[in-house]
Amino acid sequence: MTDYSEGDLVKVTKDGREYSGIVMPSRSDKIVLKLKSGYNVGLSLDHTTVELLERASPPPKPARREHPHKKGLPNVSILSTGGTIASRVDYRTGAVSSQFTADDILDAIPELTDIANFNGKVLSMIFSEDMDTTTWQNLARACHEEIKNGSDGIIVTHGTDTMSYTAAALSFMIRSPVPIVLVGAQRSSDRPSSDNAMNMLCAAAVATSDMAGVTVVMHGETSDDFCHVHRGTKVRKLHTSMRTAFQSVNVAPIARVDYATRSITKITDYPKRGELELRLADGIEPRCALLKFYPGMAPDIIDYYREKGYRGIVLEGTGLGHVSTKWIPTIKKAAKEMAFVMASQCINGRICDRVYSTGIDLLKAGVIEGEDMLPEVALVKLMWALGQTRDMGEVKKIMCTDYAGEIQWRSTV
Amino acid sequence: MTDYSEGDLVKVTKDGREYSGIVMPSRSDKIVLKLKSGYNVGLSLDHTTVELLERASPPPKPARREHPHKKGLPNVSILSTGGTIASRVDYRTGAVSSQFTADDILDAIPELTDIANFNGKVLSMIFSEDMDTTTWQNLARACHEEIKNGSDGIIVTHGTDTMSYTAAALSFMIRSPVPIVLVGAQRSSDRPSSDNAMNMLCAAAVATSDMAGVTVVMHGETSDDFCHVHRGTKVRKLHTSMRTAFQSVNVAPIARVDYATRSITKITDYPKRGELELRLADGIEPRCALLKFYPGMAPDIIDYYREKGYRGIVLEGTGLGHVSTKWIPTIKKAAKEMAFVMASQCINGRICDRVYSTGIDLLKAGVIEGEDMLPEVALVKLMWALGQTRDMGEVKKIMCTDYAGEIQWRSTV
Repeated sequence: MTDYSEGDLVKVTKDGREYSGIVMPSRSDKIVLKLKSGYNVGLSLDHTTVELLERASPPPKPARREHPHKKGLPNVSILSTGGTIASRVDYRTGAVSSQFTADDILDAIPELTDIANFNGKVLSMIFSEDMDTTTWQNLARACHEEIKNGSDGIIVTHGTDTMSYTAAALSFMIRSPVPIVLVGAQRSSDRPSSDNAMNMLCAAAVATSDMAGVTVVMHGETSDDFCHVHRGTKVRKLHTSMRTAFQSVNVAPIARVDYATRSITKITDYPKRGELELRLADGIEPRCALLKFYPGMAPDIIDYYREKGYRGIVLEGTGLGHVSTKWIPTIKKAAKEMAFVMASQCINGRICDRVYSTGIDLLKAGVIEGEDMLPEVALVKLMWALGQTRDMGEVKKIMCTDYAGEIQWRSTV
Repeated sequence: MTDYSEGDLVKVTKDGREYSGIVMPSRSDKIVLKLKSGYNVGLSLDHTTVELLERASPPPKPARREHPHKKGLPNVSILSTGGTIASRVDYRTGAVSSQFTADDILDAIPELTDIANFNGKVLSMIFSEDMDTTTWQNLARACHEEIKNGSDGIIVTHGTDTMSYTAAALSFMIRSPVPIVLVGAQRSSDRPSSDNAMNMLCAAAVATSDMAGVTVVMHGETSDDFCHVHRGTKVRKLHTSMRTAFQSVNVAPIARVDYATRSITKITDYPKRGELELRLADGIEPRCALLKFYPGMAPDIIDYYREKGYRGIVLEGTGLGHVSTKWIPTIKKAAKEMAFVMASQCINGRICDRVYSTGIDLLKAGVIEGEDMLPEVALVKLMWALGQTRDMGEVKKIMCTDYAGEIQWRSTV
């Protein structure tokens, strides 16, 4: 067996045919080559010979540019956390990895420096699936610090996978007089269809606008004409790969940003710059679970979390907010110690547990209706509510109060 | 305290004002009245007196009609399982309850008898959140029996909450030469906006058409003009209350049925009546779990299910199919005994674990990519696959093979 690694140039012979290319990441029973044509080919390793042509060399260092401070421009902080917007394809392997700092972003998108003076901090360099409540707290504290020190707006670069969870966490943890904009990219910067420059420039426009509070700015439609500005508590990733993956749910987006002119068109109301005083409330209870219900699912899982000392559970129920009636005694018992919030796996629409008898029984057992909150937002809010108080009556009051646009009492879409 | 029950007529006095109305279901600290105007009012029970005016009387029996057999019409079986389409609002309380049998449906929608001769069976009378793998098996066996006995088509009336789970289960359990149509209603028949007659008539049109296999027929758009026919493995309830809640995901619907004319317009290909031979494969493994991942979620939950003897887990991951890298050792260890399938909480799009390093590591740990399957469908299919074989290699092969349109190898929308 030839000793080869990802990134090496090899020649593979199989069934009398020869393939030359760069070794790509693959499962152990296969070899995947990036051919000169740019296409990948996957070959099973049975009856296959691999010949090493050239060892991969380490990647070159990118050139550094200077970014002098320009008078009269607002000051925007870029807090980098990792993700595709801060990544490029590793030329050796074709795999995407996180390598960009804020300075790298300015090098790559020099138009940014006409919009603001940027001050960059790398908070983490992780894929967003590895974020947790501690990352959220660190990020909230860093935003608070930047604003306290005079930042006119903040851009958080973030992996798209869990961006909406982080946006919700920041929405509850910080009351902000300036814009806090989360931005990501669905395609890495090496790809011609990359959305990173467009998203970043539109994010900079929002960070220097009058739109206070936490928003998510992402690609608006396939034509590449504009980005949408979404409320941090009402947005969800709704496609695995499309650049238009981020959509506002149960509300319209707040605004759109024209890519060419960077002009902002308001769609719905938003808190204005300077309206609210800066406040940090970063307490959070990580011992909360999200349970997505499916037919036949056993209620024992609630006991499991109760015994582990969990303080709250969001039930992602069916339809208007239901789980099997077999769950009701277990919930009723656990509700003495834990908070239960109902959300719906339908994604769109509102919880209403006053229509069907199952719902009415769930309310009697102590379940709190999650209104029109996304299940993910209900989870983050429950963690935050339990981080603010231990009093279950207070937790319920918090869950039923709109703090950051997460509950709309009347449906607007 | 006055002794009153739901459905009673009472007079409530609070803060010097009087309210008379029917007692509706509510939480114990409140009383909710349906006023003569039709509006509801909710009042806290503090400092409130309730006077009983009239006890509720039992509901009257509906009149029965005859439905004579008409020559030349096809034979369609209606299998009732409960749900809103088989329900009406209890006139005493305003709460919705399941009371309808197949004969009740024919009484309510007499136009049906021009389309086919109907033969009804009540399989269950439950809300669909109480369905489980046993209900699916009973339903699959009943469909098989009806088809064997010469039924030209089957209509399954079903609660909308878990209808798509049941549709997926039937899709895998029965290979059918005739149409098997699941139909429900989002609004009960007593409401002017009820969709039950429209959905039922369109379902009857599909049940007597050339469209074999399992489909879901529901309201297509708010204008009330047509229903959509969805493939049983590609449909999802995407709104808690709207009549257009059911949408095909990652594919176009199969067809539309015009409400006025009952004519069917094909949109995509489908298996034709008589093309496939009848076959029942109703084995199913209920010990499978769906885990929706969220940031910071602890991987111990996998050990919990492994120790309980579970055989399979569908991970509803983020983005292209990710969970925290902290989960990988736990998955790798458990994958010796259990099957792991990755699906995405993005709902739309396709799993691809070959782009980012987390995904590549998940594949190495033994996770099977769920392609473009809905998480709910991936769960039902995994239960079914483990009901067919204990061989993990075979399970993987089944999961990666398209059996009932659940996997589309190329995206069509």
